[in-house]
Formats: sequence, structure tokens, C-alpha cells
Amino acid sequence: MLHTMSSPASTAVDLLIIGAGPAGLALGNWFRDTSIRVLIVDKKPGPTPRGQAEGLKSTTNEIFDSYGIGSQITAESWRLEEIACWGTRKDGGEGIVREQVIPDKVEELGKPRETMLQQSRVEHHMLHNIFPHNNIEIRYNTGPVSVDVDTSCLHETDAYPVSVYLEKVASNASATNGDATNGTNGQNGRRPNGHDAYKERISAKYIVGCDGARSWLRKQLNVSLEGDLTDSVFGVVDMVPKSNFPDIRRVCYLRAASGTILLVPRSNKEVRMYIPVESGTALPDPKDLTFDRILDAARKIIAPYTMNVGSVSWWSAYRVRQRVGNHFCRLNERAFLVGDAVHTHSPKAGQGMNTSIQDAYNLGWKLRLVLEGQVRSATARQDLLRTYESERRPVALDLIAFDKGFLKLFAAPSAQFDTEILQALKFTTGLSIRYPPSCAVQLSTGVQRLGPSLLKADLVPGKRLPDFRVVYQADGVPTWMHKRLCATGQFRMMIFAGDIADPGRLKRLHDVGKYLGESKSLKHVTMPESGQQPLVEVLIVHCAGRDQLDFLALPEVYRPWSEESGYDYWRVFADVESVHDGHGRAYERLEIDRQIGCTVVVRPDGYVGAVLDVEDVEGVRAYLEQINV
Amino acid sequence: MLHTMSSPASTAVDLLIIGAGPAGLALGNWFRDTSIRVLIVDKKPGPTPRGQAEGLKSTTNEIFDSYGIGSQITAESWRLEEIACWGTRKDGGEGIVREQVIPDKVEELGKPRETMLQQSRVEHHMLHNIFPHNNIEIRYNTGPVSVDVDTSCLHETDAYPVSVYLEKVASNASATNGDATNGTNGQNGRRPNGHDAYKERISAKYIVGCDGARSWLRKQLNVSLEGDLTDSVFGVVDMVPKSNFPDIRRVCYLRAASGTILLVPRSNKEVRMYIPVESGTALPDPKDLTFDRILDAARKIIAPYTMNVGSVSWWSAYRVRQRVGNHFCRLNERAFLVGDAVHTHSPKAGQGMNTSIQDAYNLGWKLRLVLEGQVRSATARQDLLRTYESERRPVALDLIAFDKGFLKLFAAPSAQFDTEILQALKFTTGLSIRYPPSCAVQLSTGVQRLGPSLLKADLVPGKRLPDFRVVYQADGVPTWMHKRLCATGQFRMMIFAGDIADPGRLKRLHDVGKYLGESKSLKHVTMPESGQQPLVEVLIVHCAGRDQLDFLALPEVYRPWSEESGYDYWRVFADVESVHDGHGRAYERLEIDRQIGCTVVVRPDGYVGAVLDVEDVEGVRAYLEQINV
Repeated sequence: MLHTMSSPASTAVDLLIIGAGPAGLALGNWFRDTSIRVLIVDKKPGPTPRGQAEGLKSTTNEIFDSYGIGSQITAESWRLEEIACWGTRKDGGEGIVREQVIPDKVEELGKPRETMLQQSRVEHHMLHNIFPHNNIEIRYNTGPVSVDVDTSCLHETDAYPVSVYLEKVASNASATNGDATNGTNGQNGRRPNGHDAYKERISAKYIVGCDGARSWLRKQLNVSLEGDLTDSVFGVVDMVPKSNFPDIRRVCYLRAASGTILLVPRSNKEVRMYIPVESGTALPDPKDLTFDRILDAARKIIAPYTMNVGSVSWWSAYRVRQRVGNHFCRLNERAFLVGDAVHTHSPKAGQGMNTSIQDAYNLGWKLRLVLEGQVRSATARQDLLRTYESERRPVALDLIAFDKGFLKLFAAPSAQFDTEILQALKFTTGLSIRYPPSCAVQLSTGVQRLGPSLLKADLVPGKRLPDFRVVYQADGVPTWMHKRLCATGQFRMMIFAGDIADPGRLKRLHDVGKYLGESKSLKHVTMPESGQQPLVEVLIVHCAGRDQLDFLALPEVYRPWSEESGYDYWRVFADVESVHDGHGRAYERLEIDRQIGCTVVVRPDGYVGAVLDVEDVEGVRAYLEQINV
Repeated sequence: MLHTMSSPASTAVDLLIIGAGPAGLALGNWFRDTSIRVLIVDKKPGPTPRGQAEGLKSTTNEIFDSYGIGSQITAESWRLEEIACWGTRKDGGEGIVREQVIPDKVEELGKPRETMLQQSRVEHHMLHNIFPHNNIEIRYNTGPVSVDVDTSCLHETDAYPVSVYLEKVASNASATNGDATNGTNGQNGRRPNGHDAYKERISAKYIVGCDGARSWLRKQLNVSLEGDLTDSVFGVVDMVPKSNFPDIRRVCYLRAASGTILLVPRSNKEVRMYIPVESGTALPDPKDLTFDRILDAARKIIAPYTMNVGSVSWWSAYRVRQRVGNHFCRLNERAFLVGDAVHTHSPKAGQGMNTSIQDAYNLGWKLRLVLEGQVRSATARQDLLRTYESERRPVALDLIAFDKGFLKLFAAPSAQFDTEILQALKFTTGLSIRYPPSCAVQLSTGVQRLGPSLLKADLVPGKRLPDFRVVYQADGVPTWMHKRLCATGQFRMMIFAGDIADPGRLKRLHDVGKYLGESKSLKHVTMPESGQQPLVEVLIVHCAGRDQLDFLALPEVYRPWSEESGYDYWRVFADVESVHDGHGRAYERLEIDRQIGCTVVVRPDGYVGAVLDVEDVEGVRAYLEQINV
């Protein structure tokens, strides 16, 4: 595949990311505060200017929290509170009627399930979060020409088996996709004439394709997409409506004979509409669709209400492709595909950007651990990286299966509609995801010994640690746990110490701390001599009154001391009433027994790696040894 | 006073602000989105780099909300949840003991009372909020040399009676105040040698001195400060403590024989300490104080606990000056003094930056109204501007009286300590402020007719509208009202329509709306022909279920239509349970009768101008006529 050229410039990087959309930027954010050299390239001239994806699930907002940009993104986002369902009239008359309004709420989350922020702003925040870190470079107007992989050195730790030629792309390309132009055109940057333009050869240890539905890397890797190609054709419109439709500021599913419009309120006075466009029995080619034709389709469905047009900020038309790649990893786990590059969905459940970011979040910490040299054998490195496919491919497949059922749910509501929609809301938020057992997900003996009550809860290995609000022991400030679990690449040994007003349980906590600190029982929890951060951060969540604990009397592993900056005050939490924000009821939500407690190993991506007995330090060690760190 | 020079450059502005600290920037923010020409000058080379003020009261955060920067500031701020009181031992032994921990909470606020963010970040956000607005210019390294006022034209509306010569200040001046240098030095920029440096003559309609405790403008205006000069000498230290003091992450009042230390946790691991430094009976000169001497004083008070020093980011020493200017306005209300320029306080109640910003917020909308040409006579303009002094000078005087009592509260706690501290917390948050009757504060007949219940509440003319959380009728999104009340310069006619499930009350609401819209009864509520915003924005807060109201059937004044952007969906609120954030209980909190309701005129600064009967449109008109707008 290699283009021969007269000695182009050559650069070595640890990780080459193709594509600086939400997936590429989410992946890049994992490498802040490391010395890992990352290069992100994109043919686009800059961040997405408008349109594209928009909905953010709360689990995605947790990722932003862990990157330290959650508050800014939330402050800019538009909240969604209610979903209105409209259908055809039961009496056979013309037009649609409101059937019900349901809260857009999942009780378990304890916070808004979904917010809206346009992709350009999401990219903006992730991009600006990367800027201060010189080890991560982002180049726009730059695309790959060829990739070559030296298969002879795939097993060598320090090899750079991947060679990619990059070239400059004319900056007028692909920037014009937007205002009232057909979004299916102009996606590929135009190359300068001939092959004499500036080229650079990049050598990389790993390569990741975050390059979207028309992924260049996917084609180079001979990964094929499988699934349904011709499901339906949609128009998407972002505009200011002039409408007397009364639910214009609610999420609406408008069901009519010709299809279901999804209407979502955007910032300011705009709404986004996903409008199915049918053409008799034959589906139209998206390229033939005009804005007027899309709007006509919308008007037919929303009648008798009016739908006129103020300003239009973006529109597009496309054929929905519900497909999943047959591989997510290739070349001995040296090459990966993320997000739209390897699975595409109907937009109706708002999964595109969320799933892309979550894919990247899943892969990023594994690559970081490997590139930091923490994983001790080539086999173990491959095993860990392979979990990216074993964990994320089933999610993509499930999404497609779900999507079909989801549309049916609205097409023909059953008597169990309320229950079904709630399940659907949970599903689209990602609460049903449970990664299978692997080196990073361990079904430990602790679960059985703790009895079946724990299994009822969501606190099981392979599931995301449910977010919960607790209060810092030292200052009484409340925090959501995922906000505290910054994306540092660390595992967390989270000790739910129970009600330590009981002297026995308090002593148990002290004993574990002493054992951790004094005997080098688990070297991962103490500061390495290199001065780097320990691989495991120890946290305590107790449920006694805060006056029951003498912070400074705790073993040092729970409140480490640094000569430069004093104590770390923020490792001990209490599940108590806070001064201003109420009681988080963490033990109750997680169904943890206050008398027994447990110790949870939380992976760097906030998923549960293992659930153990409080004092089971050996269990933590066994978990880490399985990953071979 | 005028320096004669050979034809310097000359510029005309509407408003010249001396000083770009928190007061000057808060004032400048009022003129965003206007065509009023504002020039802010400061001798400093740029925003305050570190140290200085830090605490933000929730009422100050409401101001940031109204400027659209509240979320960013809150996200960066450190919350304060608890106050610990420590005193000498009752048994006569040495050292201090914890007496109690009280929540740093005022129930009425419904949100955190106080947060911490260093002045540099507060300035940063206010500055960046101004940048996009070309009508507001900020020049650093620029100080005033002389001011001259043409008293012959003070009554002429369009005159520029104020002439100020500005000069460049060497950029190495005053930038070094900070790290371990004595903060009382180096406050004045050094002038270039001689008088041949660049100068510019500015003509202004109004001038405001936000130039701090050593205000240049105050001296030019011959305003004298009155009050206590030699109260006490303090050291202030921002540092990482290495201490075994257990409440190091709480706000602490540490009371010992030699004085009371105030300890406040800052961001990261830093604390700020205000340390009284006594020298026998004679007070030391702040210039003679060293860091070691301040720390020695701290160690004596905090013993037997240790207090060692990690990194020190800032320290300073100063004599507390509790003084208030005899005038806040001069020269027929053409010149004003704001913040530290006209009153200084002990730092212990954290009032400096808050009061400065609140002064500026009070003055800004009045100047904006006048400079926009909204006030129709010279007398009315003076009357309105004069309320700045009549409203803010008593606040400054009260603060000083309070400060003395506040110190006594901790020096000798009484049996009513809990009640007293709560009153103090309310006071320092500004909840006790009630501006006297004036053209902008009207004790209307409506209050009497509504009976005494209304007078019990905080919803009375002259007080800040208590913040409350309600739900938007159109989309169910909850909001705090002050976040909605953007600083647009508009008055709000806030109709608390009561329980409109009752057809009579719903009809009353419609009738008022029709009267407002159709008969030109109150021209201020409808869009002027100039296309500018109306002077009064009409808002509805009802307390019926949201399904009781047909939004689109409301009279247009409640949901105005614009040909470009459709309906304004965000003028109608319901006091109901929200999907995610609970029930704001606004009617209950404001003690508004759900059967009767009321109409509140809210001033552009969020203070209550008048409380009227729901249908009393004439009362609104009378209020506005008193201001003569």
C-alpha cells in the first residue's frame, strides 16, 4: 500500500488518531498529563461548525465530568424534561392528537437523563481541554494517504509497526457542508492536484480510526460492515419554527401513517426534526431530496397544526444505515475502529455521538495503560486491548436490535407503553450495558459471600459504577462520585466501610489501611519511587456520622501526605445529609449492607472491575494480576 | 486642575470608569448590548494576578447569573458548608478547643450562601464577558492625571462636562504586588519621568471612581472618609498549611486572648488566614510586618496544633480602616464613587468585593437608563442617580456597625450565639438590605390592600426579590428566577397570577394581558417602533398545574411573536414540581396568597420597586412615571 516518495519528513508517535470529531477528541483527552505522544489528524479545516449530533446522555456527561469539562458543558446545554407522544386520532378523523406526556426521567440516575448541546460546542470543549498538553497534537486539513503495517514486529513492545503517509488537504474542502446544502455531499476533502503536495511519514505504535461512517481506515483494514443498508431515508432540519403546535418545546414523537417525526427542542428558539421521507414504495435517493420536499413531509404529519419556517441553521438528508463492523480491532490489536467508523444507527434514539464518545472512553484507558508501560507482557497487552472489541461490539449490536423495537414501540403503542418507554429510556442511557467477564471484569467470590442482595443492584462487575452523591469528610462539600473520578488512568479501590460508628468496623477499616500502607502488601496503592501517581487510588465511603471519624488518625494511605502540598483531604466520603443538597443515600441506591460493606475495584473508565469483601486486599491484587499490571 | 498641553488627542465617551477591578468591571458589564460608549482605565498592567478578595455571597452570584457568567463562576468556585468555632478552654488550661460546628446556611436562600473564588478569576470572567462588546473599551497601564469639570453645563443633557487627562503608566509598575511582598507597598503605578509622555484628553458625560481604597478620584472630588482609622492590624496569608488542626477545611473562627483568626479553605489545598497582629498596646506599622511575624502570631493562637508552611501564594499586611465617604455622588450626580473608593471594612465578614460589586450593580442600571435617553427630564435623571447614594451609603454604614458587633459575637459568645450567628449570616449575605422609599422604591397602596401577610415576607419594595425556583410553562425546565432576569436594563412586571385553575383568575390574567396589549394602556410593555426592546418585560408566575394553561391562547404580550424568531416561550412560569429538581415552592417562600396573587415591579437590578394588585396596571404606570421613563 506504500506510496514511494523521495524522503518525506518522518515523525514517530505513540498513537495516531484519524479523525478529530467527538470520538477522536474523546480518545485524545485520555492522554492529558502523560508523556505519550499522540497525533490527531483530520481532513476538515477545523471543528464541526454546526448541525450534526446533539443529544448528550447523562452517562456521556459523566465522561465529561471525568475530563473536568462537565460543568461548562452542562451550563451551556439545554435540558430535556418531558416527552410528548402524539398519534393519529382514534375516531378515524384527520390529524394528530396528544396521547400523553411522560417525564424524560430515569429515577436511578438521580439527575437529568439527557441534555442537548450541538456537536460544535462539544468538540470545542474537548479540543480546548487538550490544547494545554503539548504531547497531544491536532492537525486539521490533514488526511492519510496510505497505511503500511510491518507485521514482523507486532509483538515487539517498543516497535512502531504502523507507517502512515499524511498529506495536506485544500482548506476549502468540506468546510461548506452546512446551511441548506445537502449534507451527504462534500464529505471528502479534495486533494491537491497530483501527488506532489507536502507529505509526511508517521510511524506509530498504534492507530485508531475515528474517521466516521465513510472511514478510510476501515477500508484499509478490510473491515466490512454488516447489516441493513436501506432501512429508511431521513431529513434532518435545525430551524426556528413558526408553528402553533403546542408541544414545540418538548421532545415529541409524532406518529402518523407516513412515519414518525422526532422533534427535539434545541437552544434558543430552534427545534430539530427528524423527518422520514417516503416516495411511494421506493425510497428516494438522499441526493435528490430538497429542503422543500422534507418540509412537505413534515407538514403532512403535523397537520392540522401549522409548520412554517423561520431561519434554518442546518439541514441534511441521508439513508439510515444500521450496520456493525465484523472487527473492531485488527493487526494483533495495533489498529482500532471507533464510533461511526465501525457502527452506524438510526438517529432516533440519539445514540451516534454518545456511543462514539463511549467507545473512545472504553479504548482510551487501555491504550494509556499499555503505552505507559504498565502492562507487563505482550500477551497481557493484547488481552487487555482485545476487551475493547469484546466490550463494545455487543453494545453496537444491541443498539441496532433496540432501534427496531424502539420504532415499533411508537408505531403501535401497547398497553404496557409506560413500562416499555421507561425501559427504553434506561437502555438508551446505557444503563443496561454489562461487559462480559475478561481480564478487566472479574466475577469474584466476594459477590457470592455477600449474598444475593448485592446481585440485585447495579453494583456488579462489568456495569458502570452507578453515580451517587456523597459528602467529603473533611469539608462537608457534596459531590457526585463520577465528578471526583477524574480520568487519570488510575484504578480505584473504593472501600465501602459501612457504619463505622461500630468500633469493630472502624478497627477493620484501620486494619486494612495499615496492611495496605505498611507491608507493601499491594504496591499499587503507594507512590512509586519514580514520583508518578500510584496505579490505584484508595477511597473510603462510610455511612456513619462525620463526627465518628478522626480524619488525621486514619492510616496514611487514606490521607496521603506530600511534603509540598500537605494532606490529600479528598479521599474519604460520608453518605450523610449535606448542608445544602440533601442526602445522596448512596448505600441505599447501591444496595450495600451498612453492617457488611464491600470493596469495589473501579476501572479507570468508571466501570466496576470487581466487587469484594471489605478486607479482601488479596482480591484486589488478584484482579490487578489478571490484567498483569 | 487642568494641565495645559499642546493639543493632545481627544476622545468623547459617555462614561469614564477609573479602575478595572471587581467594581469597575461589574459596572462595565451593565453596558453590554448597548451603544453607550464606555471607557475603563486602570494603572495596573492587567487583571489582578493573585490574592486579594475571595468570598462570593450568593446575592453576588445572582448578579453574575444576570450577567450570564454565573454558571462558569460557580463551577470554578469552592463551596463553604460549615463554620467551626474554636475558643479558649473553659477549664483554664492552655490551647483552644472546638466549641461547635454550625452549618453555613441560610434557609431562605435555598442555595449555598457563600463560595470562594479568587479575585483574579472573578475579574477574568467579567472581563471576558465585556470583550465582545466594542462599545466598551478597557485600557490597562493607563491612569488619570487631572480632572476638570465644566459646571456651567451640568444640567445639559447632551453635554460632556467632565474632562480627564490620561497618561500611560510604565508597565512594570504595580505588577509585582503579590508573592511574599508586602501588599501595602507598590500599589501606585510609577509615572514615566517628566510630563512629556503620551497623554490623551477624554470628555465624558459621567465619571465613576472604582479606583480602590486610595482612590484618586475621591481626592479630586474632595470627598472625605469618616470613621475609625486604627481599628487593628491584620496579616493575610494564602498558603498550603502543614497542620494537624482537624478543621483545616472548614471556615473557622479561632478565638484566643490575642485575637480571633479567621481561617477559610481555598481552592486545592490552600487556606487563607486573617491573623490579627498586636504589639503590646501599640499597633505595629503594617510596613514593618514580616511574614514570619504574622505566622508567629498565628501559631500562638492555634496552639497546641501545629501550623507549618508549604508553598505561600500570596500574603499581605494592612491596617484595617473602617471608613465611609461623606458623599457617594458629586457635581450634580455627574461623578460617583463606588466600592473601596468610598468605604472600607474589616475583611472578616468577607464584604469587600461583594459590596463593591453590589454598589456597581446598583449604579449601573441607573446610568444605563439615563444614557439611553429613557429618563425624560434633567431633574428626574438627577433624582434617579441620587438614589445610588441614598441606597448604598446606609449599606456601607450598616456594615461597619455590624462588623463591630460581629467581632464581639465571637469574642464573647452569648447564650443566644446560634440565633445571633444566623442573623449575622443573613446580614452578611445582604438579606437585611432594604432601600428607602424613592422614585425607584414605591410603597404602594397594593400592599395595604393585600393585607399584612405580604408585609411579613421579604417581598416588599426596596428589598431584593428573593430568588426562587420555578418551571417554564413551555418546556418544563426548572430555573432560578434571578438566572432568568438577565441584566438587560429592563424592568419586569411580574404577575403572580395565583391558581389559574379557577376560571375567574384565568380570566383576570387574560383581561390584564388584553388590556396591556390592545389599548396602549402601558406603552412600555410593547416593542417600540425603533425596534429596541420594550422597557418593561411582562412575566407570569402561576401556581396551577401546567396543563391548566393553553400557552398559545394567551394574549400576545405574554408570549410575543417575532417574524424572525417565532414565539418567546420563556415568559410564563409555573410554581410546580419539576421532573428532576423537586418543587421550588415559590408562592410559599414569597408568602403570596394563591387565591389573590399580586403584581410585582422588579427593577433592572432585581430589587422590588413596587408590590401591587394583580390587575393594577395603573399602579405600574404610576411607578414608571415617578422615575419619569
